[in-house]
Amino acid sequence: MPDKMRVVQIGLGALGRMLTSYLLDRPQIEIVGAADLDPSLAGRDLGEVSGLGRKLGLAVCDDLRKPFADGPVDVAVLTTVSHLPAANPQIEALIACSTNVISSCEELSYPRLTAPETSAEIDRLARDAGVSVLGTGVNPGFLMDILPTALTAVCREVRKITVLRCQDARPRRLPFQQKIGAGLNLQQFEKKKADGSLRHVGLTESMHLIGSRLGWKLDHTEDIIEPVIAEREVSSDYITVKPGQAAGVYQLGLGYAGDEEKIRLEFRASLGEPDRQDTVIVEGVPDLKFTVPGGINGDVATCSILTNAVPTVIAAPPGLRTMADIPPLSWFSARPLPTGAPC
Amino acid sequence: MPDKMRVVQIGLGALGRMLTSYLLDRPQIEIVGAADLDPSLAGRDLGEVSGLGRKLGLAVCDDLRKPFADGPVDVAVLTTVSHLPAANPQIEALIACSTNVISSCEELSYPRLTAPETSAEIDRLARDAGVSVLGTGVNPGFLMDILPTALTAVCREVRKITVLRCQDARPRRLPFQQKIGAGLNLQQFEKKKADGSLRHVGLTESMHLIGSRLGWKLDHTEDIIEPVIAEREVSSDYITVKPGQAAGVYQLGLGYAGDEEKIRLEFRASLGEPDRQDTVIVEGVPDLKFTVPGGINGDVATCSILTNAVPTVIAAPPGLRTMADIPPLSWFSARPLPTGAPC
Repeated sequence: MPDKMRVVQIGLGALGRMLTSYLLDRPQIEIVGAADLDPSLAGRDLGEVSGLGRKLGLAVCDDLRKPFADGPVDVAVLTTVSHLPAANPQIEALIACSTNVISSCEELSYPRLTAPETSAEIDRLARDAGVSVLGTGVNPGFLMDILPTALTAVCREVRKITVLRCQDARPRRLPFQQKIGAGLNLQQFEKKKADGSLRHVGLTESMHLIGSRLGWKLDHTEDIIEPVIAEREVSSDYITVKPGQAAGVYQLGLGYAGDEEKIRLEFRASLGEPDRQDTVIVEGVPDLKFTVPGGINGDVATCSILTNAVPTVIAAPPGLRTMADIPPLSWFSARPLPTGAPC
Repeated sequence: MPDKMRVVQIGLGALGRMLTSYLLDRPQIEIVGAADLDPSLAGRDLGEVSGLGRKLGLAVCDDLRKPFADGPVDVAVLTTVSHLPAANPQIEALIACSTNVISSCEELSYPRLTAPETSAEIDRLARDAGVSVLGTGVNPGFLMDILPTALTAVCREVRKITVLRCQDARPRRLPFQQKIGAGLNLQQFEKKKADGSLRHVGLTESMHLIGSRLGWKLDHTEDIIEPVIAEREVSSDYITVKPGQAAGVYQLGLGYAGDEEKIRLEFRASLGEPDRQDTVIVEGVPDLKFTVPGGINGDVATCSILTNAVPTVIAAPPGLRTMADIPPLSWFSARPLPTGAPC
């Protein structure tokens, strides 16, 4: 059994920088390297880049393979892009370095139906290398897919699943606030919506995870995007929204079996969103309502999940994994380290 | 891949009889046999015994090995006793029949710390036989252990976990109402508490599951039992409670690391309990409160969980398993059957 779980960070955008201190919290995790494609970061110390106010003695590389040259690595945590076609070359390069991979790439969370060929290839490469690959995060990865799925364990019958995620985006990182269109006028909002750059990525993957576990063949899914229009001026640390501009996004994922709406995922994120909550409603036997009043901060939750996944992914069987086929993640302090690290 | 998952029921008390219709709900499950040690049930049809109002063409055996003589069985669902020393010979006999085992035995839910030798022996026998053994149910097994544990996935830090399970016992099965002491005078309550026959079994196991996953070494656990005293007359279909008698039980599980209370499980079940809820409170970063207003009916939930565990236990690696080391259970309809059935 290794002394510590050796982790490399790939991607030092806002999420990756935030993640550094989460990983350092855990005495069983050692960060042994970091890389980012941004040449302006090359050679800078990870602690400085991540705003820790202290050096870690780790220079950021601009080649993601480089941190693996110096010795064995248990897990690469990849926080770069949302879309699988862009993440895939990075994932494959990491597998070639014989490391397990945990990624926040939303489209990796349940890619078997949306990207079957890429999924099969990642699965094959990972099995051959004896490593596992997991896409996760708060959403997709937890609140709108594996959590509602797992809650149905107590059900005799399930007819429909509805999830409401309503959050105030003010305490979220800037790229998130930009991604949801905060501060755009409605023309800009529609333009960014049309070019695909304005949306929460992952509702379709979440619906497929739920459908696959519950045995619902989804014949049709929809992903509807509308602006949340500000009624009064509202500001975050980064953005001021005028009345009539978009304060954020309302996004609705609908999954149908035949004509029947089986899955309804309502995602609402805006600056100053009043009715903050995470709620799961199961229509079945029994009817169930689970709620987290106030909701869960997505950045904190995603960094926590990526960190909490480390020992479970090390212990998982090789291949492309999803949150539906590994044991439930949990926070851990001094839990004994997993055996079976690939290196 | 088999056409159906072949299941045998062992134990036809109130829970086992209720379970029959839950198993029959699922088109992918076939009940192929049933046994109970009660000689008055021997030879009777399972459908009659379980109150279905129709025959299933399956005679109840009084020898638990007999249903395995006629062909391969994927899973035995064992609903007999709460205590592991009494369940253990049954579990070992079932393993010897080369079947996976799912049991409602409360002390099997997380026995590694409370019964290390028995656990090691069950694990060894199950591995040798290529089968897996799981103890589960709503509680222990879900609401007060794996659910709060899994919710901490979104946490950066966890200092304490509190779970409140407050339920109205009126809609529960009679043995449950008796187990919580409903209708006893306080002298009878204390007598049954002293002889160990009046308590909810499993709080200690739930605390050990949480502690193990979160890396908390529990130096000391307590399991405190008090009556809930009726202020006015209250009745169920089975029992009438007079003012001053016990309407049910308040049971408090406390888990300490050193002097610090890390886990607090409050279980309150009485006839007419007013404040019905299932609530998980995580003190940490972030603080979280997760609640199911009205709470979850334990009999429905336990029968559902035992049923929903069938495909996951068939697919699990051989050995003694717990809810912490298998993928999250979920309700399933037409999910593809697992491969890897032992027979």
